[in-house]
Amino acid sequence: MDNQIISSSDLSNLEKRERTTLINGLSGFRSANLIASLSKTGNQNLAIFNSVMHIGADPALMGFIMRPEVVERQTLENIRYHKKFTINQVTQSIHKQAHLTSAKYDNATSEFEACNLTPSLITNFPIPFVAESPIKIALSLKEEVQIKSNNTILIIGQIEFICLENGILEQSGHINFDKIEGTAINGLDTYYVCKKIGSYKYAKPGMHIEEL
Amino acid sequence: MDNQIISSSDLSNLEKRERTTLINGLSGFRSANLIASLSKTGNQNLAIFNSVMHIGADPALMGFIMRPEVVERQTLENIRYHKKFTINQVTQSIHKQAHLTSAKYDNATSEFEACNLTPSLITNFPIPFVAESPIKIALSLKEEVQIKSNNTILIIGQIEFICLENGILEQSGHINFDKIEGTAINGLDTYYVCKKIGSYKYAKPGMHIEEL
Repeated sequence: MDNQIISSSDLSNLEKRERTTLINGLSGFRSANLIASLSKTGNQNLAIFNSVMHIGADPALMGFIMRPEVVERQTLENIRYHKKFTINQVTQSIHKQAHLTSAKYDNATSEFEACNLTPSLITNFPIPFVAESPIKIALSLKEEVQIKSNNTILIIGQIEFICLENGILEQSGHINFDKIEGTAINGLDTYYVCKKIGSYKYAKPGMHIEEL
Repeated sequence: MDNQIISSSDLSNLEKRERTTLINGLSGFRSANLIASLSKTGNQNLAIFNSVMHIGADPALMGFIMRPEVVERQTLENIRYHKKFTINQVTQSIHKQAHLTSAKYDNATSEFEACNLTPSLITNFPIPFVAESPIKIALSLKEEVQIKSNNTILIIGQIEFICLENGILEQSGHINFDKIEGTAINGLDTYYVCKKIGSYKYAKPGMHIEEL
């Protein structure tokens, strides 16, 4: 295949927006999640994140990257105050509303209301979930990890409970993402819907690929 | 919608494999990348990672999570020794070979050869790339971040250069992932191919969704 090489000096010479778009997209697909939190005074906050990741299964930990200097600051302050937050999967049917939560609304505005998504409370967890989301996760703040290279923070939460739409959890523990029309994000602004192509057995040396 | 609630005690009671599968899949889609490195003695190593992430655009940084106690240890030792590695996007056409790199091959075995992928050298960068991958990234080790919660490590690399298949980089800086049939992973073993549903303008309060 014919290739083009982009050196670090080529990168520096790119127009800032093009450079940011390119670098943001290089890693491939990212998860699409809405994180809900509550301010000191009880205002609901909702923001889309493309950096939510699995950290570990036992204990059950999830994390996401925060850029403290930008709009996400509200989410950070809220999580530090209440030590609790929720993560809600973005599906094709709500991806446009989810994208709009990234606007810089003032503190008093609930992005649930501004972006036409429904807050929903489950059991006695104090933070709202996104009613429209088929995967809702309640977490408590576990650790903040400083990343010196660019002053970002990896926020790690421990799962308190999970709320799944009936019928999407398979016997094996897999969630049927085709059924919920789960989305992925490339970069900051481009949304994809994902179709399963295969689920494979744990690989061993010399083995041929085997479907689960 | 009808929901099922899975409490933390329900999670503890799940069979270990089901629990691991469920927790691993909760965050949604993850990037699919092959990381290549070179041992002290010059053996080529290639391993699939689903945790490669964007860290920052300026400086251009990418990271991924390491579980030092498992098979990925070879990659970690190699990166610490040479301070350089490559990241290569997994596409639909090579996703089966990519999955097979996760097998525990001994140090002397090159996963390139064992899994039928082609090592390729570009300019004078000492670490091989995956010839079949349309997005190849050369990085130098920048930072290791310890995550205390579960003794994992976030490895951060700085981009030295990028090598893209001709014709996939758009004027805007977006990479055309439909064209390369880019894949995403859910959990550890389930592969998806992703189709673009929309690319949207930076959101502002009160705005309706607008295509780029």
